[in-house]
Amino acid sequence: MKRITLSEQELPRTWYNIAPDLPEPLKPPLNPATGEPIGPEQLAAIFPMPLLEQEMSQEREIAIPEEILDVYAMWRPTPLIRAERLEKHLGTPAKIFYKHEGVSPPGSHKPNTAVAQAYYNKISGIKRLATETGAGQWGSALAFGCCLFGLDLKVYMVRVSYEQKPYRRSLIQTWGGEIVPSPSPDTPAGRQVLKDVPDSPGSLGIAISEAVQDAVHRDDTNYSLGSVLNHVLLHQTVIGLETQRQFKEFGLEPDVVIGCVGGGSNFAGLALPYVREKIGGKQLRMIAVEPEACPTITRGHYHYDFGDMAQTTPLLAMHTLGHSFVPPGIHACGLRYHGMAQLVSHLVRLGLVEPRACQQLECFEAAVTFARTEGIVPAPETSHAIQAVFAEAERCKREGKEETIVFNFSGHGFFDMSAYDDYFAKKLSDYALPEGDLEKAWDEIRDLPKP
Amino acid sequence: MKRITLSEQELPRTWYNIAPDLPEPLKPPLNPATGEPIGPEQLAAIFPMPLLEQEMSQEREIAIPEEILDVYAMWRPTPLIRAERLEKHLGTPAKIFYKHEGVSPPGSHKPNTAVAQAYYNKISGIKRLATETGAGQWGSALAFGCCLFGLDLKVYMVRVSYEQKPYRRSLIQTWGGEIVPSPSPDTPAGRQVLKDVPDSPGSLGIAISEAVQDAVHRDDTNYSLGSVLNHVLLHQTVIGLETQRQFKEFGLEPDVVIGCVGGGSNFAGLALPYVREKIGGKQLRMIAVEPEACPTITRGHYHYDFGDMAQTTPLLAMHTLGHSFVPPGIHACGLRYHGMAQLVSHLVRLGLVEPRACQQLECFEAAVTFARTEGIVPAPETSHAIQAVFAEAERCKREGKEETIVFNFSGHGFFDMSAYDDYFAKKLSDYALPEGDLEKAWDEIRDLPKP
Repeated sequence: MKRITLSEQELPRTWYNIAPDLPEPLKPPLNPATGEPIGPEQLAAIFPMPLLEQEMSQEREIAIPEEILDVYAMWRPTPLIRAERLEKHLGTPAKIFYKHEGVSPPGSHKPNTAVAQAYYNKISGIKRLATETGAGQWGSALAFGCCLFGLDLKVYMVRVSYEQKPYRRSLIQTWGGEIVPSPSPDTPAGRQVLKDVPDSPGSLGIAISEAVQDAVHRDDTNYSLGSVLNHVLLHQTVIGLETQRQFKEFGLEPDVVIGCVGGGSNFAGLALPYVREKIGGKQLRMIAVEPEACPTITRGHYHYDFGDMAQTTPLLAMHTLGHSFVPPGIHACGLRYHGMAQLVSHLVRLGLVEPRACQQLECFEAAVTFARTEGIVPAPETSHAIQAVFAEAERCKREGKEETIVFNFSGHGFFDMSAYDDYFAKKLSDYALPEGDLEKAWDEIRDLPKP
Repeated sequence: MKRITLSEQELPRTWYNIAPDLPEPLKPPLNPATGEPIGPEQLAAIFPMPLLEQEMSQEREIAIPEEILDVYAMWRPTPLIRAERLEKHLGTPAKIFYKHEGVSPPGSHKPNTAVAQAYYNKISGIKRLATETGAGQWGSALAFGCCLFGLDLKVYMVRVSYEQKPYRRSLIQTWGGEIVPSPSPDTPAGRQVLKDVPDSPGSLGIAISEAVQDAVHRDDTNYSLGSVLNHVLLHQTVIGLETQRQFKEFGLEPDVVIGCVGGGSNFAGLALPYVREKIGGKQLRMIAVEPEACPTITRGHYHYDFGDMAQTTPLLAMHTLGHSFVPPGIHACGLRYHGMAQLVSHLVRLGLVEPRACQQLECFEAAVTFARTEGIVPAPETSHAIQAVFAEAERCKREGKEETIVFNFSGHGFFDMSAYDDYFAKKLSDYALPEGDLEKAWDEIRDLPKP
């Protein structure tokens, strides 16, 4: 047996909220003007109340509305697949499994929250959403969600990806979304960057500023974020909850849980239900993998910082490279974020999650090996998880250990083929960030409150 | 319940061969030199014996080898999905289902036969395959199959698609295949076309000539065809066999079975097990849908003709527009073939299958509606089936009939987004073929043997 696909009836009916199970509570978001914890009412201008309630909830289980389950059932439960061909190729005694989130219509894990966010905004009377996107996985997922619930959408797509991945743009348009490259002339934040750095490749931090300003500026519009926030990670826990049931059917339990991290949502979606088991005393390791080109949890500071470049968001306690940090234009654009989910940062700090960083070339090498053994072409983001899986499988071989490794196959690479073209043409390189760059961005935040 | 996904254990263990159930036998392929029926030994230079045996077999059930089942299990059984959102949007009393073949690693139904062909060539001692591809669904599927079984591959890709769909080319390369645009300077047939028509958009007929010449020329190389031949359609019957089991779980039976046709394999894969039911007396309709720009079964002649432009293949009794016919460069390049599977042609002639043609623009309109209701972006080929589904659903509405319609969702459109860009930019048009063009191509074959 190499693949467990649960039936529609086995879809989880609740999301898992880790907040009440944390050994220490999360630090609250702060109002940058007052330095005081921020309440839901101060965020109600850009988020609907049901999502703000989830953001701050202490309920362990939060019911998934029928309307959302009905959409999930279009592709969920997603399969849990044993990578037997890969194991054989690597000659490892480890058992390798992947949760295949690439089977969703937009091709990644992102619709798990996009659909939920579109639904809650819809029932809250909102007509239009504004958002940012890096490589386009989030933008296309939200376009899909908005299309199904009849909302308008404007997407600010990081320019380097807008140019590298023209077909994610087409996909967003096919689902009826409007899309512009960011920095754009459509918002104050975008205009400012264009003035200062006319050829800016853009960053998630800039695109978030643009989308937030768009939402603040229009009464009919809310802002929607594809990662980082608690409610986003909450929606993604369907991934881990399904995986737990699927491992039961395999008669196995994972020893190592791996995911790539940009904002942290796909990793957390798989890992949080297992973090609960670990807090409960189970022996297992959780590894969050990021690019060396944007080493937020491996080289950033745990500090209060803004979620965006233009300082429009509340202050969040998280690992950060500084909100003005613009990472090099690597292909895993979904991982080019200066910050990290508060929850993932917190778990790293508590020693429950191991941070790891890897380089672009070793990731593509792993991705091509995966494609040539398991048949499925990974997104450049996902290749970071795969690289870490290879390293763990290698370790198991060295140590003669028959461990069970599971990773989140967060999305396919069909819209990232230009990255593979560049890799085969040897046009890609690794990145070693100069220490000075990190120091400079850090200087701008060292006077913000300490967590 | 909107989606039935069978377990790995429910994978069909045999393919269904319709030959013994046909009310009249197929006409044999002829040797063009002698006009005599051709035997397997004459084709052994380019096909392995197990496939030739299947091509001519009279066994109703042909066992699927374990090695092939093991690969099928990577994505099969594929889901059968009820398109409830689409039904609601169309306001039809019809129940609409689709068999989602887009979930395979290469994204279409093509690996069902690609994997089988790679396997049989491998066990027959072949080291390398040569093939043609239109839009690239077949080329990428065979690259996937060859990669898994360790065979080299050269793909001749119709030039218009090579340029329109650069990322299917990247996909082929990611799986290790070599690829050139056809007509190419690498074969006598390619060089001849380049000499006569230097800016030829290419056609499947030309690309087949190139791949056959490549295979004939090299001892270590066989030729592999992605549609048309009996053994190809045989391998695709897993689609219909699974669908029959899935409808049982839904407690339903289809009244109308629909698929798009280029060479005929995805349509036949779904339809043949149902043709058997129809021959057995069941009331149901089978509709094969092709583009108006390449109207093989709706406007072609049923006649013996070559399968390729350079007249390198045996003569096949089929609907044909003439082997020299080069259709306009529509985006559904997988449907740009001058001929049609002998088996599908035969069933049309016997009145068991209804032919239908539709125009490019109405197909894209249907595809966008499908994407915006069911969430999944169809390949331009698949959109032809969807257009026919819309017409049937419309009829059911008019007649107040609650019929069950099933179609083969043959592949996703993630590699065809430039076609959607062109559609949204209003750059696409319909095609009305001048009668003269068809007459001219027909003139070249009217002296070939009559079936």
